[in-house]
Amino acid sequence: MAKVRAAVVGAAGYAGAEAVRILCAHPGFELTCITSTGDAGKRMSELYPALLGICDLEFQPHDAAAVAAQADVAFLAVPHTASLAMTPQLVEAGVQVVDLSADYRIADAQVYEAWYGAAHTSPELLAQAVYALPEVAREQIAAKPPVISCPGCYPTASALACLPLAEAGLLGEGPVVIAALSGVSGAGRKASAKTHFCNADESVGLYGLPHRHTPEIAQTLSRGAGRPVEVLFTPHLVPMVRGLLATAYLPLAKPLSDEEAQALYAARYEGEPFVTALPLGMMPQTAWVEGSNRAQVGVKVAPGGAMLIASCAIDNLVKGAAGQAVQAANIAFGFDEAAGLDGSCPVV
Amino acid sequence: MAKVRAAVVGAAGYAGAEAVRILCAHPGFELTCITSTGDAGKRMSELYPALLGICDLEFQPHDAAAVAAQADVAFLAVPHTASLAMTPQLVEAGVQVVDLSADYRIADAQVYEAWYGAAHTSPELLAQAVYALPEVAREQIAAKPPVISCPGCYPTASALACLPLAEAGLLGEGPVVIAALSGVSGAGRKASAKTHFCNADESVGLYGLPHRHTPEIAQTLSRGAGRPVEVLFTPHLVPMVRGLLATAYLPLAKPLSDEEAQALYAARYEGEPFVTALPLGMMPQTAWVEGSNRAQVGVKVAPGGAMLIASCAIDNLVKGAAGQAVQAANIAFGFDEAAGLDGSCPVV
Amino acid sequence: MAKVRAAVVGAAGYAGAEAVRILCAHPGFELTCITSTGDAGKRMSELYPALLGICDLEFQPHDAAAVAAQADVAFLAVPHTASLAMTPQLVEAGVQVVDLSADYRIADAQVYEAWYGAAHTSPELLAQAVYALPEVAREQIAAKPPVISCPGCYPTASALACLPLAEAGLLGEGPVVIAALSGVSGAGRKASAKTHFCNADESVGLYGLPHRHTPEIAQTLSRGAGRPVEVLFTPHLVPMVRGLLATAYLPLAKPLSDEEAQALYAARYEGEPFVTALPLGMMPQTAWVEGSNRAQVGVKVAPGGAMLIASCAIDNLVKGAAGQAVQAANIAFGFDEAAGLDGSCPVV
Amino acid sequence: MAKVRAAVVGAAGYAGAEAVRILCAHPGFELTCITSTGDAGKRMSELYPALLGICDLEFQPHDAAAVAAQADVAFLAVPHTASLAMTPQLVEAGVQVVDLSADYRIADAQVYEAWYGAAHTSPELLAQAVYALPEVAREQIAAKPPVISCPGCYPTASALACLPLAEAGLLGEGPVVIAALSGVSGAGRKASAKTHFCNADESVGLYGLPHRHTPEIAQTLSRGAGRPVEVLFTPHLVPMVRGLLATAYLPLAKPLSDEEAQALYAARYEGEPFVTALPLGMMPQTAWVEGSNRAQVGVKVAPGGAMLIASCAIDNLVKGAAGQAVQAANIAFGFDEAAGLDGSCPVV
Repeated sequence: MAKVRAAVVGAAGYAGAEAVRILCAHPGFELTCITSTGDAGKRMSELYPALLGICDLEFQPHDAAAVAAQADVAFLAVPHTASLAMTPQLVEAGVQVVDLSADYRIADAQVYEAWYGAAHTSPELLAQAVYALPEVAREQIAAKPPVISCPGCYPTASALACLPLAEAGLLGEGPVVIAALSGVSGAGRKASAKTHFCNADESVGLYGLPHRHTPEIAQTLSRGAGRPVEVLFTPHLVPMVRGLLATAYLPLAKPLSDEEAQALYAARYEGEPFVTALPLGMMPQTAWVEGSNRAQVGVKVAPGGAMLIASCAIDNLVKGAAGQAVQAANIAFGFDEAAGLDGSCPVV
Repeated sequence: MAKVRAAVVGAAGYAGAEAVRILCAHPGFELTCITSTGDAGKRMSELYPALLGICDLEFQPHDAAAVAAQADVAFLAVPHTASLAMTPQLVEAGVQVVDLSADYRIADAQVYEAWYGAAHTSPELLAQAVYALPEVAREQIAAKPPVISCPGCYPTASALACLPLAEAGLLGEGPVVIAALSGVSGAGRKASAKTHFCNADESVGLYGLPHRHTPEIAQTLSRGAGRPVEVLFTPHLVPMVRGLLATAYLPLAKPLSDEEAQALYAARYEGEPFVTALPLGMMPQTAWVEGSNRAQVGVKVAPGGAMLIASCAIDNLVKGAAGQAVQAANIAFGFDEAAGLDGSCPVV
Repeated sequence: MAKVRAAVVGAAGYAGAEAVRILCAHPGFELTCITSTGDAGKRMSELYPALLGICDLEFQPHDAAAVAAQADVAFLAVPHTASLAMTPQLVEAGVQVVDLSADYRIADAQVYEAWYGAAHTSPELLAQAVYALPEVAREQIAAKPPVISCPGCYPTASALACLPLAEAGLLGEGPVVIAALSGVSGAGRKASAKTHFCNADESVGLYGLPHRHTPEIAQTLSRGAGRPVEVLFTPHLVPMVRGLLATAYLPLAKPLSDEEAQALYAARYEGEPFVTALPLGMMPQTAWVEGSNRAQVGVKVAPGGAMLIASCAIDNLVKGAAGQAVQAANIAFGFDEAAGLDGSCPVV
Repeated sequence: MAKVRAAVVGAAGYAGAEAVRILCAHPGFELTCITSTGDAGKRMSELYPALLGICDLEFQPHDAAAVAAQADVAFLAVPHTASLAMTPQLVEAGVQVVDLSADYRIADAQVYEAWYGAAHTSPELLAQAVYALPEVAREQIAAKPPVISCPGCYPTASALACLPLAEAGLLGEGPVVIAALSGVSGAGRKASAKTHFCNADESVGLYGLPHRHTPEIAQTLSRGAGRPVEVLFTPHLVPMVRGLLATAYLPLAKPLSDEEAQALYAARYEGEPFVTALPLGMMPQTAWVEGSNRAQVGVKVAPGGAMLIASCAIDNLVKGAAGQAVQAANIAFGFDEAAGLDGSCPVV
């Protein structure tokens, strides 16, 4: 069977490069085109010598028509607002868009504008876009909406930590506090004071308050709970390359035992190919999912019984970005949901 | 003027070794005695080659009479419950005890027993002990109580992040959530799976739930607020040697602007030799206080205005342990509060 | 076609666990049995939660007959001297042995005894064992000798850095100095002062002089050069989990230009599935091969022209251990040499 | 006694900032002026929040007359060739120059030009400059030459590793190979792909071949040996902030035992305030000298007895830059050689 031709738009950044890595070994997609306006003319392996002999494609400058001529599906790993401009052209040209940016995640264009500081210029596509967290939107993704909008890294881990409780109607009143920790690759490939080894190593701190992922997380939890949920989200940068942990402090609508909480999560994620509810007594470590599309979630009722602590670990570049995008594309194109994503990750 | 003779009991562990490092350069104390039952006979510099030529003292097995013969003050850097046994003997022998363990921190012996799993065997000394956070107990420390009980690392950072709001009567109803991050030295010198480089590096996760520092934090915040405060405390281990960050999510009793919040913290810490309220827009990084006794606190009102985010960075082994102990001892013995602690730390 | 049944003996250690990880995704081998005397009864995923759902086999205590009943091939990831005892029994029982230990690497039993402090107890098998560096012994491996003896991590990188020059008769007189750097996983899974995060992080140093890999490296270079080559090998421990770099300083028999040196290496490794001679101007980084079975080699003639600098990067647990063992087993069992080893590694 | 007024020129970089940190706590120097053309108008503590409350001076644009009006001594922490322009003006204006750049290190202007690609424009001052490695040039430094030219980081560690053997006439024929490892702060404060956390972390590699420090090292060893010594120097970048290790492979002119080698080094460094010859069996770790001006040297005769392995650890920013500059200035201005440099460093 002919493979589905795939392009990665914005392939020079970390999420794009990770999409390239995954697609190169995918049984159903064939990577035919990579774009990067800033690095046009260079080869992928010049920027990422780990891909020497694996992907030596040349970056093309972005052009919707050229992408459409080469690809059936385009993974957009571009900064927010850049996708706003590119997506309508690609959709028009008949390309299935899988968007890793924030541009089609927030259903309410006004909320988008308030947090991202830019008007939403394609409200029609926004209305048709699907927020593609496979664990909640599998059928909608399978229906191949014009824009498959992939969740952000923090929202993915936050959602997986909170949704079982919210969906079960067990989330109590009051704000959901989420303390998240991300490796430095989350800050992108651009060299800056923040990403300088001597600043990032051996140090931790909060950053980016209030963070733009807040409304996206609130949207997901509100949908899950069936009522507005207030979210207080704070990200910390920690000295590691990959990995993201979101620890949520969830008010309980009624007391739960540890066992009940774990059973709730285990039942919710049973059969999910990429999400594991850990047994009681285990809390996830980001290293346990590094390099893979898997998520691990651990729960513990707080002393006193009024709150649940739920912690979720993912690889920010895989389940938090490129891997989840491929997972959604697998669903949309009818491949096994785990196709190209079943590799195990380093065990140490 | 003759120096005050000092002993470090339990000098082989990280907190003890840090006390040794500080005391070796102290203008008022003279380190005369180090003990470690497990390493008796070895030299300090065998265990810590960084101290070659700086401290080549030999570890003695612990013996209260021997310590009393050699020292006026003893810094106890021993595991909890070990201090319970040693402290009464040292006090009896006329030694000023500065205890870094948890044994005299919790005023309510029943709470201690519930969390530490051991009966409190010296309730009389417990009643006289001072919880020696200098920023709240300067005068009580100066009165030289028999036991100067030094706060734990997490409780120190948590207290400095929360107290200005609590003391001002601005802490609202509901639990105070504290998400804390610690470097691996907080887990101690013992080699274990948890502290193995290959497990600790490039990974983060929650651990030790519920954590024993919870009641200590609740005690401090309750004293500050003048009413019982519920605390939900969760520690994460992060891949760095030193440094501790406590981020607190504080319900506000009434709305505050960012400016008001910052001004409150700045006023509270004005004149404090070791605590800095950062200007608005800055949040602390642990690297900025690494190796020093300083603490930095940053604040930000959460979107919506119902909660305050307050984040405090310390070096877990200095302000979180040995440095704070020396700070308290400086107060007790009438030295400049910053004596021996004024060294700046590496800027990168 | 039925898969070849495989056992990993000593699967609880890092090299063994890496073999497990690779074999679980291998198209031709089926992992049927894992042993660990110390962890018998536990599940693989208890020790390595990254393998939850991927390998949940239970460790068996080692028993040659039991292994033989379950497996056609056994990968021995046990400490040196342990293999000496196990290998003859397994061979006797008809199991193909792929030995990752040092026990069958040194052809001269006296040299083995001098460096490893133990008599060699199976000289007959030693005489039949093949030193299984696929890049030099492909045909011998394909002949399925009773013991396929896999090179050590340092010797693999050192050999790949030096062999093209030695084989071309261009290695001059004088010792070959090799300065090598290894990540901490090279020190094994055992928790010790050396592997404690607080000792290994943010520090580098030499260790283990003289190192036992010295005679193995000398044997390989001497075979390549066709005359005895003296080797001065020194390993450094560096603060990373995986990765190994060997930089060799090679006396030149006659002057070479950079271009000639690079061309020599490129020609030698052309067609090799796992070894890449980097273009001039590039030197390898261990991150570029992390998690993969690939090796990268860069060369540069030293100022003055009398010496060649050749640097090789590998992942110590893959090309330096488990990956290379599977590569050799692929050859022996007639699979594609890259079967199960073609996954790309994380690009950041 | 009035303090000696000091300026740090180029104070925004890492070496300059480290000089600032040291001078702020120095008993004899008073830091009066910091310059940085690129950051003029900002405060030191804006760039380095670790110095909040310790140094809040404002960066001035560089101007020789202004520096001369404010300072008796200027520490120049500027890129090579920048010092060439600044130094003559400062000397002219009566300022004692302590130069941390490479511009006055190489006595032969032609060698300088060949390696640094710039003509040497102040040969008269070059002729008067003293290469200020205190362990070999204490008296010349005390004579207050117009330019005190401080050794580079790699040359300092290399010299301390090799000089005892070279000075004793025991260095044999053949090149001295030096494999060095540096933390990322050695690459400077500029954000670049090389210093991006995601590239530098969890990876090692060679860089910068041939490296400009080669002729400086050769000059020092040749002076020590009293004859030309050929040096093959290769630096590796390793994932840590600070620390530098130079391991030298030294041909022996005659066989030495381990004990003889160690005794030679111990005798050479006896009484040196900052250099320690480690006992046999110990090799230095960079963490053991981190944050301090100390150097540790370990030696081991290679198997066969023809070569000596000597390894030296320093903190690249202290003994390798700012600390050594202050050490030299202490000598020149008649202070205790260890003034301001006696602080111990973190023990973990």
